[in-house]
Amino acid sequence: MDIKDSFHQYILDLQFSICRSLELVDGKAVFVNDDWVRPEGGGGVSCVIAEGNVFEKAGVNTSAVFGKLPEAMQQAFGVGESQFFACGLSLVIHPLNPYVPTVHANWRYFELYNSASEKTDSWFGGGSDLTPYYIFREDGEHFHTTLKNAMDPFGRHWYPKCKQHCDEYFVNKHRNNEARGIGGVFYDYLRPESEEDAGNLLAFQEANGNAFLPAYIPIVEKRKDLDYGEKEIRWQEIRRGRYVEFNLIHDRGTLFGLKTNGRTESILMSLPPRARWEYNHRPEPGSREEETIEMLKPGRWVRE
Amino acid sequence: MDIKDSFHQYILDLQFSICRSLELVDGKAVFVNDDWVRPEGGGGVSCVIAEGNVFEKAGVNTSAVFGKLPEAMQQAFGVGESQFFACGLSLVIHPLNPYVPTVHANWRYFELYNSASEKTDSWFGGGSDLTPYYIFREDGEHFHTTLKNAMDPFGRHWYPKCKQHCDEYFVNKHRNNEARGIGGVFYDYLRPESEEDAGNLLAFQEANGNAFLPAYIPIVEKRKDLDYGEKEIRWQEIRRGRYVEFNLIHDRGTLFGLKTNGRTESILMSLPPRARWEYNHRPEPGSREEETIEMLKPGRWVRE
Repeated sequence: MDIKDSFHQYILDLQFSICRSLELVDGKAVFVNDDWVRPEGGGGVSCVIAEGNVFEKAGVNTSAVFGKLPEAMQQAFGVGESQFFACGLSLVIHPLNPYVPTVHANWRYFELYNSASEKTDSWFGGGSDLTPYYIFREDGEHFHTTLKNAMDPFGRHWYPKCKQHCDEYFVNKHRNNEARGIGGVFYDYLRPESEEDAGNLLAFQEANGNAFLPAYIPIVEKRKDLDYGEKEIRWQEIRRGRYVEFNLIHDRGTLFGLKTNGRTESILMSLPPRARWEYNHRPEPGSREEETIEMLKPGRWVRE
Repeated sequence: MDIKDSFHQYILDLQFSICRSLELVDGKAVFVNDDWVRPEGGGGVSCVIAEGNVFEKAGVNTSAVFGKLPEAMQQAFGVGESQFFACGLSLVIHPLNPYVPTVHANWRYFELYNSASEKTDSWFGGGSDLTPYYIFREDGEHFHTTLKNAMDPFGRHWYPKCKQHCDEYFVNKHRNNEARGIGGVFYDYLRPESEEDAGNLLAFQEANGNAFLPAYIPIVEKRKDLDYGEKEIRWQEIRRGRYVEFNLIHDRGTLFGLKTNGRTESILMSLPPRARWEYNHRPEPGSREEETIEMLKPGRWVRE
């Protein structure tokens, strides 16, 4: 099997295991599969869950699309008329309990071909990042450390580099550079330099994908039964407003997808079930909410 | 008084009368004034109301800012280093009752100067548009007809032109060209050709501003006490999600403001108090919700 088929098979397997694990934790909600076809070539499977015991809204999508490279992508990549193949898994999980963080992850692979169908470029990208409404230091450490441990066997430079990339990306610049959450890892344009290197990058990609459930599920288990009330829900909704702002104003993937005639419902499945905006909202001084805001900047989450 | 001072005084007076009228209708909420200063020159007054009997969230803002034209604006206007003056009133009103529509309006004036402080360009812009959650034909007709009647004395070409401009602007292209609401009027770059013409355009601007309360308040009065329940609130929240999408993805003013270091809280006061996103939501066939969706396209709202 070539790299692209291997990776496609991998994300389908990963989609299955992530959905089953989430169902197990939830105990009520069952994923609904929504297959879709892209008229220009390829398609995808959106797996969505709503109004569970634990997960208020979650989407775990895979897609494999190919064909003529859309003009907007030609411009973005600085190439002329080309053919492409793109394949990835993308997930966003919004839990009900405000003490359980929202999580986002994505792993993708891209190939470009010239008019003679020769592969001219290819790269991997991916990452996982956590958006808590109330920050527990030990949860952040668990999430980051699990991701770091998955990357370290490939070289100890990976985690710090990808952690920084993540910190720099998920920022609401229009909110005085407030971070969307407490980060994680993010990487893009990892180009294999040889067949062997492609195999290594695929293994790197799989190590990252496999780290997702152990990074996230223990945090869910630990916080899902904590008591909360109206106040915590309101705060969760306000923070989810910031999540919406990031995704619609700054997220390159979202804007690109919407502008290139992507499948709107799959792209916007990342949006939270509920959000709230209050004019000039400020958390009470000394509150846990204020403490969270103060921690929404690049921080150290791994004990060295 | 020159045009810019006259217009500034007008919008301050209009802000006062709109806020008082809304308070009167609401019977509970009182506007809070939030003055702000722009470090580079000028400032504004944000008047906000929250959690009223009738209005869940409303902002009526004026600003008058001036100084060196920011670089992003130089590019947008296709000019070199310049000085500018900009002044306007902008309002968004989100009522509590899902049968009362959200409304947005804005009237503005802009002047550009060269390095010798000579005025090189100036223009007016503005408009009002209505976003119902449930469409009552008679309300739409009242809103549009009131706006048309205000414009007609200046020439009967104005309303059809500005109505079309509005229909073309407030569209969620990524939602299969669904309209944000049922439109109204929208105009921009109305450049005075002489002193006298400037006076006429100022009168046009004031006629439009003065039409706002008579266009909107009777609709509020008529619908504010209609019964509603969970189902209607949920629908309102889903539609408000579309409002958020338009403002953050497509609205030029919002994106421009956020990118040019505008005052984030004043810009984003347009966002609704609550919003909701459900994967692939479709209203029930034959329901009032589905009927609303079907009417969210350019339509005829004035009986000729």
